[in-house]
Amino acid sequence: MKPYLIAALLVAAAPAFAQQPPAPLPPVSPQVTALRDAALHDELAYDIVEGLTTEVGQRLAGTEAEARGREWAVRKLEALGFANVRIEPFDMPVWTRGPESAEILAPFSQKLVIAALGNSASTPSGGITGEVVGFDSLAALEAAPDAAVRGKIVFVSHAMPRTQDGSGYGFFGGPRRLGPSMASRKGAIAIVIRSIGTDYHRNPHTGVMMFAEGVKPIPAGALPLSDAEQLQRILKRGKAVTMRLTLVSQVSRGQSGNVIAEVPGRDPKLAPILVAGHLDSWDQGTGAVDDATGLAIVTAAAKRIMDSGRPLHTIRVVWFGAEEVGLFGGRSYQATHTEPHYAIAESDFGTGRVWKVDSRLGKERESEARSLQAALAPLGIVPGALDKADGSDIGPMLEAGVPGVTLNQDGTYYFDIHHTPDDTLDKVDREALRQNVAAWTAMLAVLSGGIQTDPKRAKRR
Amino acid sequence: MKPYLIAALLVAAAPAFAQQPPAPLPPVSPQVTALRDAALHDELAYDIVEGLTTEVGQRLAGTEAEARGREWAVRKLEALGFANVRIEPFDMPVWTRGPESAEILAPFSQKLVIAALGNSASTPSGGITGEVVGFDSLAALEAAPDAAVRGKIVFVSHAMPRTQDGSGYGFFGGPRRLGPSMASRKGAIAIVIRSIGTDYHRNPHTGVMMFAEGVKPIPAGALPLSDAEQLQRILKRGKAVTMRLTLVSQVSRGQSGNVIAEVPGRDPKLAPILVAGHLDSWDQGTGAVDDATGLAIVTAAAKRIMDSGRPLHTIRVVWFGAEEVGLFGGRSYQATHTEPHYAIAESDFGTGRVWKVDSRLGKERESEARSLQAALAPLGIVPGALDKADGSDIGPMLEAGVPGVTLNQDGTYYFDIHHTPDDTLDKVDREALRQNVAAWTAMLAVLSGGIQTDPKRAKRR
Repeated sequence: MKPYLIAALLVAAAPAFAQQPPAPLPPVSPQVTALRDAALHDELAYDIVEGLTTEVGQRLAGTEAEARGREWAVRKLEALGFANVRIEPFDMPVWTRGPESAEILAPFSQKLVIAALGNSASTPSGGITGEVVGFDSLAALEAAPDAAVRGKIVFVSHAMPRTQDGSGYGFFGGPRRLGPSMASRKGAIAIVIRSIGTDYHRNPHTGVMMFAEGVKPIPAGALPLSDAEQLQRILKRGKAVTMRLTLVSQVSRGQSGNVIAEVPGRDPKLAPILVAGHLDSWDQGTGAVDDATGLAIVTAAAKRIMDSGRPLHTIRVVWFGAEEVGLFGGRSYQATHTEPHYAIAESDFGTGRVWKVDSRLGKERESEARSLQAALAPLGIVPGALDKADGSDIGPMLEAGVPGVTLNQDGTYYFDIHHTPDDTLDKVDREALRQNVAAWTAMLAVLSGGIQTDPKRAKRR
Repeated sequence: MKPYLIAALLVAAAPAFAQQPPAPLPPVSPQVTALRDAALHDELAYDIVEGLTTEVGQRLAGTEAEARGREWAVRKLEALGFANVRIEPFDMPVWTRGPESAEILAPFSQKLVIAALGNSASTPSGGITGEVVGFDSLAALEAAPDAAVRGKIVFVSHAMPRTQDGSGYGFFGGPRRLGPSMASRKGAIAIVIRSIGTDYHRNPHTGVMMFAEGVKPIPAGALPLSDAEQLQRILKRGKAVTMRLTLVSQVSRGQSGNVIAEVPGRDPKLAPILVAGHLDSWDQGTGAVDDATGLAIVTAAAKRIMDSGRPLHTIRVVWFGAEEVGLFGGRSYQATHTEPHYAIAESDFGTGRVWKVDSRLGKERESEARSLQAALAPLGIVPGALDKADGSDIGPMLEAGVPGVTLNQDGTYYFDIHHTPDDTLDKVDREALRQNVAAWTAMLAVLSGGIQTDPKRAKRR
């Protein structure tokens, strides 16, 4: 039989063949292609990460270190030529870490590595001592009778896997976010958890938690995975385990702020595009991948648009303050900036390559969303959902219905570093950083409504 | 200020704190826990993969090799003690591979590695010679005028990234699935594509494609990534590139079949739970990870339930035939088995650990779905969607609304091996295989409605 007859027969035999991909995407304009591909040679993003982490270092929310970060940001953004550079300050409670240690006194005396969770209650400087009761999961703690927990130090484990999309962080983050309140309600004197992380380096993962209303705060800390498993093995020997736990901290009031800079659009009446990261970091590393890279990526992309001409829509770059401790910067911005936004997007997932684009621009802007997918596909970015967007600081605005884009970064290794002392410059993958800048540049080039290239006006505003 | 007052203040300041996980899941029964944890020591699944790939080897759909696979399956499933072991045969067209080679004649003479795509038209045994015209993407081919393509050999590239969820395969598989028809419509004499894969081994990735109705089939092959990039570099030198392409193949009629085995439920009036993989494989490797592992995982899990007692619902194990070449087995089953199914699920994504569970059991079975999530979480499996399920052979049944579960395997490295000569036993990760068996065992233990442990009845039916 002629081959094409056989083929026709095959098609007939499998009429709705399941693996058909969507139709090819629309063509990408030469302007977008050129901007995107030039950004693959970007040096600015790394320069920003290197500068901020070297000249400021850690930037715990509400502290003078974060304030130095804001000053650094203003100088940098002005030097880069952005317009309307300003700080929008806000007040906030500030939790700061003091001396911390953990030691098993019996049955096998040894020191463990530990870090307090944000908002942990403070122990006395000499620590507290108690018997440890262990649970393999938050569900096991919840099912335990109060009598099994009362007066003890609770340990809670979990089985968080690596995920590219970071989806393990929600459910398996439960021991950190819900465990302290649950343990306190049952009468525990403290809680230590297996770090919400995926690495076996000897680094504990901190992170914020909030005691539920009316619940008495107790000291709460995280052990590295290695130490958590050591504790589990010791507990499984069946003898009473005694721990001395020192988690000193203090609380005060302080100030944080959002740093804002703009690339003015040709039509100031049009809603701006907001691109963001967060300036604050946890206190143990230098906040290189959480989130100096995010700031750097969106700023470098906006700078590329600015240097190429004048976009139709204003591009607003926001370096949010106080994300880590409860999205204070995002909420402050949302309360102040009730004006419409054309689209909002945030980079806050480290240094991995962008692997998928999701967006939620609305039904009437679907062709724009598909143009965005087309512009990103050559960077190895999967066209994702058209009805979905997320982000941390921008989360509340997205929940309120503001159009958004998510350039999903590969998070396979993100939770190896996240909230640990290991979050330092050397973890930044420079090639992946450039791919990120190219993706964000392409996104801005597509969404900003066309860039008018007028060398005189483009040079410096 | 007392720490708990500060904490209350923090909660007030961030009332809808974004990172709250869902509430803890329901408790897991001791029966499910015991079955799940025992399965972490499973040896049967590896034994099945080892046996099938060693004693049968490759099992191209519709060939006598696949028929030997069915005989092997019947013997194995009977020896394991399953009930109602049978083959349900069906006829189908069969495409088989002949000699294949590719050579650049000018400007830089050299051989390339190539494999024909399934349903490729055959060249004469001496091959064809033509000028190569290259495109970076399917969109670029689509945008090209016919005159640029007519009479030439088309080359199409793409930028498929690694994805844990396999989502890159849909869109970036376009050059294989849509490219040949598109090239033929524009008058190309043949098409070669960058393999739909993510590895840089010197292995081409085959896979099926179907020429659209009325389109003249042309020879179609895939180059390894290394050879595709070599060809691109040569094309970018700007000189005319001439290729000799030999892709010999033949078509005939043949028979395939589904192998079915059961663990009879206590109530034969209740709808069965179907768990499946596919028996056929591509012809170049031994089909170890595509899909001997899938067969092995679901069979080992069903065997564990069988050996522990008698489930309420019948468990039906299906080893589908002829998946690779167009889901013939799944469609044949769907046409014959119009009876209701309690749930259907398929394992066909290699040897990676299960990292997320999705299900679509219906609103009224949400507590069952949450019990399933709870049983799987200790294995490091993220609770996923409650309104989503997918699968290859079972895809059409899912589309028709049958309740389903998807135990998503980590696909980060799946497309390194997929459809290549490298798909051999040594790629199987035995620890990950055990985690899969534990997940499927837990799933069956939860969904099968409770297992009645009666040693006499459970031993052998």
